[in-house]
Amino acid sequence: MGKELTSRSEDYSQWYIDLVKKADLAENSDVRGCMVIKPYGYTIWENMQQGLDRMFKNTGHVNAYFPLFIPKSFLAREASHVEGFAKECAIVTHYRLKNAEDGSGVIVDPDAKLEEELIVRPTSETVIWNSYKRWIQSYRDLPILINQWANVVRWEMRTRLFLRTAEFLWQEGHTAHATAKEAEEETIQMLNVYADFVENFMALPVVKGRKSEGEKFPGAIDTYCIEALMQDGKALQAGTSHFLGQNFAKAFDVQFATKEGSLDYVWGTSWGVSTRLIGGLIMAHSDDDGLILPPKLAPIHVAIVPIFKSEEELQKITEKVNLISTELRKKGFAVKFDNRDTHKPGFKFAEYELKGVPVRLAIGPRDLENGTIEVARRDTKEKKVVSIDEVTTLIPALLDEIQQNIYTKALKFREEKTTHVDTFEQFKNVLDEKGGFVMAHWDGTPETEAAIKEETKATIRCIPLDAKEEAGKCVYSGKPSSKRVLFARAY
Amino acid sequence: MGKELTSRSEDYSQWYIDLVKKADLAENSDVRGCMVIKPYGYTIWENMQQGLDRMFKNTGHVNAYFPLFIPKSFLAREASHVEGFAKECAIVTHYRLKNAEDGSGVIVDPDAKLEEELIVRPTSETVIWNSYKRWIQSYRDLPILINQWANVVRWEMRTRLFLRTAEFLWQEGHTAHATAKEAEEETIQMLNVYADFVENFMALPVVKGRKSEGEKFPGAIDTYCIEALMQDGKALQAGTSHFLGQNFAKAFDVQFATKEGSLDYVWGTSWGVSTRLIGGLIMAHSDDDGLILPPKLAPIHVAIVPIFKSEEELQKITEKVNLISTELRKKGFAVKFDNRDTHKPGFKFAEYELKGVPVRLAIGPRDLENGTIEVARRDTKEKKVVSIDEVTTLIPALLDEIQQNIYTKALKFREEKTTHVDTFEQFKNVLDEKGGFVMAHWDGTPETEAAIKEETKATIRCIPLDAKEEAGKCVYSGKPSSKRVLFARAY
Repeated sequence: MGKELTSRSEDYSQWYIDLVKKADLAENSDVRGCMVIKPYGYTIWENMQQGLDRMFKNTGHVNAYFPLFIPKSFLAREASHVEGFAKECAIVTHYRLKNAEDGSGVIVDPDAKLEEELIVRPTSETVIWNSYKRWIQSYRDLPILINQWANVVRWEMRTRLFLRTAEFLWQEGHTAHATAKEAEEETIQMLNVYADFVENFMALPVVKGRKSEGEKFPGAIDTYCIEALMQDGKALQAGTSHFLGQNFAKAFDVQFATKEGSLDYVWGTSWGVSTRLIGGLIMAHSDDDGLILPPKLAPIHVAIVPIFKSEEELQKITEKVNLISTELRKKGFAVKFDNRDTHKPGFKFAEYELKGVPVRLAIGPRDLENGTIEVARRDTKEKKVVSIDEVTTLIPALLDEIQQNIYTKALKFREEKTTHVDTFEQFKNVLDEKGGFVMAHWDGTPETEAAIKEETKATIRCIPLDAKEEAGKCVYSGKPSSKRVLFARAY
Repeated sequence: MGKELTSRSEDYSQWYIDLVKKADLAENSDVRGCMVIKPYGYTIWENMQQGLDRMFKNTGHVNAYFPLFIPKSFLAREASHVEGFAKECAIVTHYRLKNAEDGSGVIVDPDAKLEEELIVRPTSETVIWNSYKRWIQSYRDLPILINQWANVVRWEMRTRLFLRTAEFLWQEGHTAHATAKEAEEETIQMLNVYADFVENFMALPVVKGRKSEGEKFPGAIDTYCIEALMQDGKALQAGTSHFLGQNFAKAFDVQFATKEGSLDYVWGTSWGVSTRLIGGLIMAHSDDDGLILPPKLAPIHVAIVPIFKSEEELQKITEKVNLISTELRKKGFAVKFDNRDTHKPGFKFAEYELKGVPVRLAIGPRDLENGTIEVARRDTKEKKVVSIDEVTTLIPALLDEIQQNIYTKALKFREEKTTHVDTFEQFKNVLDEKGGFVMAHWDGTPETEAAIKEETKATIRCIPLDAKEEAGKCVYSGKPSSKRVLFARAY
């Protein structure tokens, strides 16, 4: 690999960028703010999609596809929605290029101006509720439980690979219900699906909570989120689930005949996670030698490196390895046998460390004599020599153990970095010296929230769903508060 | 349901549109030229994706993702490419909306004009080769075998659901090779993958061939295609695979150090199929009662309709049906038990006919007594009563038989509708009276091709790869020709 990564302690941001690039996950394109997701990074996304898609279908959802473009007037129908999204968007104004008369190349044809501009979707509530109007007449048409896998565009000035890009990939669920209760239950159900996915696939513990008024989705009544902690002590919002009330139904006039025969507006939810999760996955677990990927999302589970000097040795090793690979693949694992003769074993070891392959096997002539093989795990870097006959039996359990260990480590880290504070002095000290999640009393007003953000750059990540009732005083205003909320500096 | 479909003989185009809408596959959106793919239609696309993606991966390809936007100057680099695609595209010129000063709503902010316009990708050769330039230095970096699943936009004036829409979904493979031979082999390999998919999943026979100069992809040296015949006698291009030579490598200056130590431009291919295939699937097989879907792509394989008068009857039937469903699902089939009490069995039978479910089972109280169940197949409409104990054993074989029968029927139709003609009189008569594929001699010139198109609306669909050497005279010019080519009117 040659060049080393910047270490986390030296420059965490640079470490992240180095890692994304050197592990071949993604790169910046020459198109402002848009990234290229390279095959290794995209495979992680495919594995995420597969896990999530199964969970969506198991909870009764189906996939569909809606237009990329949103007429400008659609966005404008929901007042807070347009405020939230119109400020940063890609706008299509023309539909044809033509050759410049002076032969200098192609130019936009001024005659091909659209009557109404089209916005490249920053999110699809408007275009979807415009369809739901056609689909919903009666309570018999409800619920509608649809998800869409799509690309979206939000014009961002400062971008960072995976975490914040002008174009990103995501899924967006959009459901329609006959009652507020059912829509609220759906909102919480999907929050739980996300938490389940992030904890069990990404091996990353999350805090489930509700956003404050100031942080909620433009157009929602309530926004729920899951918040995860990164190694630099900053929070990452990993998924959101919105209870939309009847806001979009009213904006697009979607009414239905109830069972009782009256007319009512439809209740809605929307929920999404994006390729941002890949950024969180990297930042939460990886180290100065490279990625640490949980087995449930790793593109390669087991890399096998032969140690050989002659073609004959390689051949004998290959025979053994083929038996192991076949057995592991039958069990559903992705195995890579790296038999390149252009690179030394040490180089290959470093490469699979960089790429976060959970288990690496090494086997040489002496192993063949002894009937052994070396097993190295990426998370703890432990190595041990085991009997070659046992290795395919050991690996499934080892991968489970690695998945569990990565989670446990992240949970322990989060517990260490979660601090209860009772004064604003403490609040600022913890943020500056320790970082992490700060649990503090807040008086519930947007003014205090804004003042704290202004002074500390920390925001209310969420009001945790499991927050205990506890009488206290707001760390900033001293006014009474009944529970602590979660503050942090965030991505 | 209620309303019937227009019959094919009455108005084939209207039948198609009726069917797409009534079977809940897709609909037009309020965004000009863009469709909404509804869940039932999207499931067919997911099944297609799954089949194709496995074939791509089995031939060594990996997925990645490149930007939606293409800077205008990129398109302009390859001369024929820009000619082919710049004429119909969506152009992003601004990146912000703002509130109008007169309070009338949101307007495009004139201060947020992009320095260089961005084109919403009509195809991604340019943006991908711009990345390949960074990725390729040496023969060791080759081949690159990448596929992308994405949305693309081509500004179409006259659209038709699935067949021609401004936005559509597709996959686009983009590969880079060290030699012309390897790139040519890749081009043919992917043509064969497409033919395999369309014949074996879509149950639709295709002719593999090369496009004439006039019909090839803008920027390609050679375009290969598969052509299928629809029931109205028109051809549908079902997939294309392009040998790009060094054209895009030269346009984006992608050179590599060869094994021998010299510098050479990289050789490329690209290949794609789109949601258009869904249109072809519908038009090739379906009838006046609705869709006929090959089992390998059907969202539901088996629909089960209970015949009952009382809740008690339904309950007894349900017990039996649960055993059957569980058994079939274990075998990997999608089963729907339609126990709605709001609709009569006859209504349900018609609905599953309309939706093209390959096998429908019906079971009533008398069946329970006799230990029987009625099996109806959608393709031939045959019904028979079988022993309930055998039904789960019979169905897998029956689904195979249906898949095969749909293919055989389409093949027989194509054979009947393929005509060899030797005079232009015959040529025109066959096109007007019989339709279908016309095999005729052609002198190889673009002038003749254009004249024939002008006079008959028929185009050269392809020069079939298996065309026999056969001395003859061009039907139009009388000049000598060495093989017949395939003409047809086309979608």
